[in-house]
Amino acid sequence: MTRWKLILEWDGAPFMGWQRQDHGPSVQASVERAAFQMTGETVTAHAAGRTDAGVHALAMAVHIDLAKDVTEHRLREGLNALLRPDPVAVLRVERVADDWHARFSCIGRRYLYRIANRRAPLTLEAGKAWRIGPHLDVGAMREGASYLVGRHDFTTFRSVHCQSDSPVKTLDVLSVEREDEEIHIRAEARSFLHHQVRSMTGCLAMVGLGRWEPEDMRKALEAKDRAALGLNAPPDGLYFVEAVYP
Amino acid sequence: MTRWKLILEWDGAPFMGWQRQDHGPSVQASVERAAFQMTGETVTAHAAGRTDAGVHALAMAVHIDLAKDVTEHRLREGLNALLRPDPVAVLRVERVADDWHARFSCIGRRYLYRIANRRAPLTLEAGKAWRIGPHLDVGAMREGASYLVGRHDFTTFRSVHCQSDSPVKTLDVLSVEREDEEIHIRAEARSFLHHQVRSMTGCLAMVGLGRWEPEDMRKALEAKDRAALGLNAPPDGLYFVEAVYP
Repeated sequence: MTRWKLILEWDGAPFMGWQRQDHGPSVQASVERAAFQMTGETVTAHAAGRTDAGVHALAMAVHIDLAKDVTEHRLREGLNALLRPDPVAVLRVERVADDWHARFSCIGRRYLYRIANRRAPLTLEAGKAWRIGPHLDVGAMREGASYLVGRHDFTTFRSVHCQSDSPVKTLDVLSVEREDEEIHIRAEARSFLHHQVRSMTGCLAMVGLGRWEPEDMRKALEAKDRAALGLNAPPDGLYFVEAVYP
Repeated sequence: MTRWKLILEWDGAPFMGWQRQDHGPSVQASVERAAFQMTGETVTAHAAGRTDAGVHALAMAVHIDLAKDVTEHRLREGLNALLRPDPVAVLRVERVADDWHARFSCIGRRYLYRIANRRAPLTLEAGKAWRIGPHLDVGAMREGASYLVGRHDFTTFRSVHCQSDSPVKTLDVLSVEREDEEIHIRAEARSFLHHQVRSMTGCLAMVGLGRWEPEDMRKALEAKDRAALGLNAPPDGLYFVEAVYP
């Protein structure tokens, strides 16, 4: 049995999310199906992060165990051929130790949230970013973001469906940068609560629009109450960027 | 009657190209339909460049004449609402002089061609770039490109359907840059022949793959013969970037 680390990219639009679902397509089911078609083996694919419906991945780390002896080249090319036409691609494959685990060995997760700050509807980037028409004040957003960095109880920014044991997380990075009409919000932590990045992004948008003062981010955090949330950003603009391992 | 300059962005995938066609959707027909729905006026939309099926536009200049008196804001928002769900967006509108013409006043056209130089199939960028698996030698491509810059007879790089009076054009810029896995080819000229950018790109890919020497670009140019063309690149990676006016 060989444990394989796969680095996957996907377009989240057609999927119910990473996790296998009875009621619709998932990235996990696509990967497990392709692995089965290639090897005849029923595998369980484990990912560093379980992304929601519509959320994209630029480089998600996943692992599967295979008894079949294949080369790295053959596994990558074979899975990619069998994953079609699903918009999932295997960027890289690597043999890892048997005790390496895509989820439990992961010590850092990086997300990117793309906002298209423009009046016109999206065409080429439809489904790939959150369009916000009015001009966003990036300086205010950056100030608002600063209140969230560090170790906090993120109950306000947590989905009611979150299964994490504790709402206390350490947010290492929450940056806001403008590149022309695009605003990039980058979030980095050992782990996140369910909907945390989208919830933080939604509130930062409220700050950028001037509906919230930057300090309202601190107040929302301190409320430790989901009802204090300003807005949950849509999945379209969210990208899982990288899983970090020791 | 007011002449309006419209700056349009579109995803070329669902269209037969800019020009109105009997046998399928076109960007021109979408724009003319939206203008009719908004004003009741039958207009003809003129574009700086008539792009092919599948070719995208980041900022195409177009003009239409309208008798109806509207504000810039109302025209842009109205057209954008009526263009949905077609992936065409009006980025900006501007009143121009009656003798200003999107096509005939244009003194420069800029195109971008995106190559995704990677083994894995495209997911998020599917239809938005030309994927080439083997590593491309950008230095060799740049050298090959240098032979095409200047005033030449571009017959080799011209579609048999090209309606231009002369195959002689002046190519001002043909640059090749790598950004990680992406290769960006930028072409700039007063005007281009039909399929010229895709034909030049296809041959540059041959050079990048090592199937052609850089000097083979010069030989292909000097042959002045369509049969000397190495390869015509697919439309997916081509973007009309900008139309330049005095």
